[in-house]
Amino acid sequence: MTDAGFDAWMGEVQARMEAVLARVMPAAHIAPARLHEAMRYAALGGGKRVRPLLAFAAGELTAADSVRVETVACAVECVHVYSLAHDDLPCMDDDVLRRGKPTVHVEYDEATALLVGDALQTLAFQLLAEHRLADEPNVQLEMVKLLAIAAGSRGMAGGQQIDLESTGKTLALPELEFMHIHKTGALIRAAVLIGAACGKPLDERERAGLDRYAKAVGLAFQVVDDLLDYEGSTATLGKTAGKDSKQGKPTYVSALGAPRARELAQELRGDAHAALATLGLRGVRLASLADFVVLRKF
Amino acid sequence: MTDAGFDAWMGEVQARMEAVLARVMPAAHIAPARLHEAMRYAALGGGKRVRPLLAFAAGELTAADSVRVETVACAVECVHVYSLAHDDLPCMDDDVLRRGKPTVHVEYDEATALLVGDALQTLAFQLLAEHRLADEPNVQLEMVKLLAIAAGSRGMAGGQQIDLESTGKTLALPELEFMHIHKTGALIRAAVLIGAACGKPLDERERAGLDRYAKAVGLAFQVVDDLLDYEGSTATLGKTAGKDSKQGKPTYVSALGAPRARELAQELRGDAHAALATLGLRGVRLASLADFVVLRKF
Repeated sequence: MTDAGFDAWMGEVQARMEAVLARVMPAAHIAPARLHEAMRYAALGGGKRVRPLLAFAAGELTAADSVRVETVACAVECVHVYSLAHDDLPCMDDDVLRRGKPTVHVEYDEATALLVGDALQTLAFQLLAEHRLADEPNVQLEMVKLLAIAAGSRGMAGGQQIDLESTGKTLALPELEFMHIHKTGALIRAAVLIGAACGKPLDERERAGLDRYAKAVGLAFQVVDDLLDYEGSTATLGKTAGKDSKQGKPTYVSALGAPRARELAQELRGDAHAALATLGLRGVRLASLADFVVLRKF
Repeated sequence: MTDAGFDAWMGEVQARMEAVLARVMPAAHIAPARLHEAMRYAALGGGKRVRPLLAFAAGELTAADSVRVETVACAVECVHVYSLAHDDLPCMDDDVLRRGKPTVHVEYDEATALLVGDALQTLAFQLLAEHRLADEPNVQLEMVKLLAIAAGSRGMAGGQQIDLESTGKTLALPELEFMHIHKTGALIRAAVLIGAACGKPLDERERAGLDRYAKAVGLAFQVVDDLLDYEGSTATLGKTAGKDSKQGKPTYVSALGAPRARELAQELRGDAHAALATLGLRGVRLASLADFVVLRKF
């Protein structure tokens, strides 16, 4: 199955996300101006917007209103950007480059970067509450719950803690997978499920298929991220390359070697496609996104 | 009007909050164990629980189910505790003592304290979404929105940014008030309004009275906090006393002098009582809480 319009669609969604993010964040002159300016610095000006793309593709699947989807996509992206601002802090990964720009604490200061992350997380939940995003308000509360669980101590934040504790250690594959299911996978899964929840309800079989797809793509994303850190250049990635091995972080490359990691990414891509089979043709954009996640070079 | 049972009621609410917080946070052995242990360290073992007390008193006003109120009170307290864990970090206020114990980053480490705050904020929104807390789900979404706006860049996090930028400066009274309305007042106001929203709807006049009460108490709380930092001892406060002047922070004491700040606290207490007049007898517990906030010694 080919998806000839995929690149154009991706560009449109990315441009739309840039515009929506710019609109939902307070203007840079509103007090406290430095904080709002720094939030905009952190969130605007690029990024692949993988999570929004997944939300949009999942929303197409359920014939969701795209204005609803852009709002939930924006909420998920706010959580992602908050996590980057905090992860880059000196007490965490201590990184100076992100999306080709100095990280938030380098451009501003540590305290501001901390508050940028805090306020972006809050904004995510504000966005999920202040607009009508589902036919039933109960479904919308379910979105809040999904995002909170995905971002919290048993999701993304927990994964980050495991990551910190794993530095300098060798992890067995199941431990590595446990870490990444939390650190990256949970939010990617939430993007897919919340995007879909904006539209018509899925039946149980469809939802299970979508969930399996989301989990496969989430893991594939991380395997490819590890490969790119190993193979890529700082210029292409827009962030510091080779950081994982320098910091002694366990990765799929260190655990499996690059050739097997490449195979694993392809297997997960196959899993994602297979999961979509239950959904029929409607999953074509999600299928293209699985390809994009695995084949990307940045 | 006297409130003979106030002290007993306060003790009951405080004990209940300790139990509810202990229940809603993942157990300390659940992975990632260090993060969950540190979250429990940050949130359990005391604190005045002023915001939960306000939520409970406001819930009594609207005849709210107390199980609903304990959940929203817990959500607001999670946001408060997250803000303490982040504010105490070296890049912020750099404090080592809180509630009579070493601060989270001293007891654990900076990265863990950062993640503790992040995960407690997330937990707050999870709590507001995963239980039935209002008769109408739309009211519950309104609670999520209220808490998010109160905690975000135009509320608590914004107030913290203004606080950081004000260190070493002299602020005029309106600027000082602007800072504190954000930093402390917004979350206190949210505690009152969200607690009330668990029960029967208030009419417009009642809601306006409650809002005016909440704003007066929020500001009174900060004026008294500044006075206690100036007059109190580290042993009584359970946190470092005299910190404001040492760090060159503008306070009500530095702006007005202690005698006038004491008067202002009493005036705000009067405002809070006057605002309750529109609510009649039902506001007696809220009135006692306004007294407690102003007369407290810790």
